[in-house]
Amino acid sequence: MIRRSFLLALTSAAMLGGCAYTAANADQPNGDSAPQVPKNIIMVVADGMGPAFTTAYRNYQDDPDTPQVESSVLDDILVGAASTYPAQESGFVTDSAAAATALATGIKSYNGAIGVDSDKQPLESVMHRAKAQGMRTGLAVTSQIVHATPASYVAHNESRHNYDELAESFFDFRVNGEFVADVMLGGGTQFFERKDRDLVAEFIDNGYEYADTYNRLAAVPTGSQVLGLFAPVGLPPALDDTRQNRLSYLTEQAVKHLENDKGFFLLVEASQVDWAAHANDIAAAMAEMHDLALTMAYLKDYVKQHPDTLVILTADHSTGGLTIGADGDYRWSPEYIQNLKASTRAIAANMGEADKPGEFIASQLGFELNDEEKRHFDDLKKANKVERYTALKAFIDGKTNTGWTTSGHTGVDVEVFAFGAGAAALAGKMDNTHIAHTIFSMLARGGSQQQPASEKPVKATNSNPNCDYKSDWRCQ
Amino acid sequence: MIRRSFLLALTSAAMLGGCAYTAANADQPNGDSAPQVPKNIIMVVADGMGPAFTTAYRNYQDDPDTPQVESSVLDDILVGAASTYPAQESGFVTDSAAAATALATGIKSYNGAIGVDSDKQPLESVMHRAKAQGMRTGLAVTSQIVHATPASYVAHNESRHNYDELAESFFDFRVNGEFVADVMLGGGTQFFERKDRDLVAEFIDNGYEYADTYNRLAAVPTGSQVLGLFAPVGLPPALDDTRQNRLSYLTEQAVKHLENDKGFFLLVEASQVDWAAHANDIAAAMAEMHDLALTMAYLKDYVKQHPDTLVILTADHSTGGLTIGADGDYRWSPEYIQNLKASTRAIAANMGEADKPGEFIASQLGFELNDEEKRHFDDLKKANKVERYTALKAFIDGKTNTGWTTSGHTGVDVEVFAFGAGAAALAGKMDNTHIAHTIFSMLARGGSQQQPASEKPVKATNSNPNCDYKSDWRCQ
Ligand SMILES: [Zn+2]
Ligand SMILES: [Zn+2]
Repeated sequence: MIRRSFLLALTSAAMLGGCAYTAANADQPNGDSAPQVPKNIIMVVADGMGPAFTTAYRNYQDDPDTPQVESSVLDDILVGAASTYPAQESGFVTDSAAAATALATGIKSYNGAIGVDSDKQPLESVMHRAKAQGMRTGLAVTSQIVHATPASYVAHNESRHNYDELAESFFDFRVNGEFVADVMLGGGTQFFERKDRDLVAEFIDNGYEYADTYNRLAAVPTGSQVLGLFAPVGLPPALDDTRQNRLSYLTEQAVKHLENDKGFFLLVEASQVDWAAHANDIAAAMAEMHDLALTMAYLKDYVKQHPDTLVILTADHSTGGLTIGADGDYRWSPEYIQNLKASTRAIAANMGEADKPGEFIASQLGFELNDEEKRHFDDLKKANKVERYTALKAFIDGKTNTGWTTSGHTGVDVEVFAFGAGAAALAGKMDNTHIAHTIFSMLARGGSQQQPASEKPVKATNSNPNCDYKSDWRCQ
Repeated sequence: MIRRSFLLALTSAAMLGGCAYTAANADQPNGDSAPQVPKNIIMVVADGMGPAFTTAYRNYQDDPDTPQVESSVLDDILVGAASTYPAQESGFVTDSAAAATALATGIKSYNGAIGVDSDKQPLESVMHRAKAQGMRTGLAVTSQIVHATPASYVAHNESRHNYDELAESFFDFRVNGEFVADVMLGGGTQFFERKDRDLVAEFIDNGYEYADTYNRLAAVPTGSQVLGLFAPVGLPPALDDTRQNRLSYLTEQAVKHLENDKGFFLLVEASQVDWAAHANDIAAAMAEMHDLALTMAYLKDYVKQHPDTLVILTADHSTGGLTIGADGDYRWSPEYIQNLKASTRAIAANMGEADKPGEFIASQLGFELNDEEKRHFDDLKKANKVERYTALKAFIDGKTNTGWTTSGHTGVDVEVFAFGAGAAALAGKMDNTHIAHTIFSMLARGGSQQQPASEKPVKATNSNPNCDYKSDWRCQ
């Protein structure tokens, strides 16, 4: 099956029984000989990817024809784990905005905060600092580019929900007069091409290339400043997109434009692991994990060619309370989610049109259903979309024996992965703010336009003469 | 509150905002100067302690009077994570027997296997190897000492449920004519003092000291061989025991008897994290985690005094599908489980005797209940014990907003902690079998009676002339 062989292509050669995955680190430039101050830093955030997701993905891509479970592309790069709790007023469980603010600025804030502290004062992000050091900067995400994670690296706002304001900040807020991000790839035309303000046009008028399809993006001359918006809001789910490898493609395109003598900072986000998990949709979650895995495989190759680059991967929090096994049963059966022809959401939406919904479901899921199971879906023909999607997810949860506890986030520490120059600085248990502190410290030591080293991130100052951040954190 | 201050005594001094917990590693003898081959190895297994448990414990012992969440005693010793899946015939989710067999012998086996492979052939454990090298050996656990984890280090059986046979193996199976374990502390008189065979008497007749209370154990002369059985089956839950610090006490007693010039191997198990989690009882789980934390604090002090000692801590698997936060709500409120006067199981059992069950529950939980909550428990006066316990747990889950997906285990990778001599060998992501391989390799290099180094664990041979393991893995 095409999809299955696509999957297997990523798994490593047969793992030696019981050997540490870290044995593979010998191939990674993490050793003493690697430079400790990277020229380029690529920060990857897998939104919602708690520890259960990385184990589930290893099982999902396991080759059942071998006795061992093949290691995943993430196994030989694990270095530590991070606590994710937000500022005290928001309790022990973070949202993506507070977590992204912590990862981007090194400061804990309240749930909902975009690049501002608990007093709603703007904070300097590692992307701002990189830009101030003369590096090139960019982001590649599968959500709208003004979603919580990328927004916290670029902009400042009291609320993650102010997408229009955030889009304006992407243009209006500057570091030393320059745009914060040279390359911005993801979704969000709805927020950038508006009747009241056409920010796409403004970026074009300021020298940015613009692409609204993946293929047009490929034609942009190397080294350009680029705005690429490929959907009104977020990109389609991996299973439904014209490019199932959309994140790895966008990452590769971003790197192409960012490479330069002074180094670059790139934020990559696998945004939709979280969305799948909010929906408690294990098939969608594993498909998003697979796009992340393709991205990490590309980045491993990149670091082999460019050992002066540091890649960090972590999650902002875990979502959904996913468990491998549920209801007292020790079985977990990923074979039921490896051959979907479309996303579960799309299958549920389309089954209403099918003559025989049960047959349609079987053909789309890629495995046989018994008569009782087919009748179950036939009976749902007249149910509404939400009911059909809920029923399909429950069916898949039962087949795979997947557990969930919430439609929201949970507080478990997340894994930290790193490889390349300086990766050793991320070893062990840390708070998520330590990741920003480490990057700030590397930028202070390695920046091509050296600025006074500061252990603590400093407040951002607005360098756009049209916009005074000291009096108003919203820049309009 | 006494219990609260007991808790706080363990938290570190105020954590510097956002610093990596690994900063504290500077105080740990994990650096380049520490010897890489330990004289003593202490393997700690926290049964059922998936990643959510260590995060939950950090939150549980947080001081709400400070803005940051204080680091736990586990935070500065995290080094990696381990996959836990059993042999292929048992799927992706392990039980404690297969996981303990993997941790003890380096070989994957089927769920239920005690120190035997998929063909039910006996395997050599790291404890067997340590004994063969002339080291002293011991175990200190809160379950019966023939429970899956300790049994897999000592004995061999096709099924974890054969407790009587396992107890006999503890006496009958020998390494070079010697008992496998010099020190055995935990529960299990029911299996050792039987009408058909009194194994306690047999151990006494072979020179072992015997203790059946914690206080009698303290009087055993230092350096003895000791059998200590303090309960018919498992020890009482931490919250109900005469010693809430029972595991740290047993560990300290075991070390006292094991210390010698040739080094020792000690297995410690916080057995009842798993039992609490099977019951989906967050209050009991956190109390067991606290006893583990006291044990780790003692071991940190011990390694400071004895830097030639390696301590490893991991879990065999996660249990219960615990999540911090549930049902779409981002709140988690550990303040409701910090002041219990007895275990939830005991409180539920005893409320049937109370005149006013609602008042009784409030006094035992240590916080006020409103009238409606009191009436809820008053109405349960005539319910049976199971119904009362179920209702009390549901009440606490609601108050704390804790999620669970199963009464069984889940497949998520578990954390690996290590400090002391050679700890660097456990860094990164590994399979659980790698922990045994690492210990075997250290024993081969460091053993005082050097044997041919073997990268792969070898099959155990029976050194008891009365018992032929080659023809029969059961030794009776
Ligand atoms: Zn989310
Ligand atoms: Zn268990």
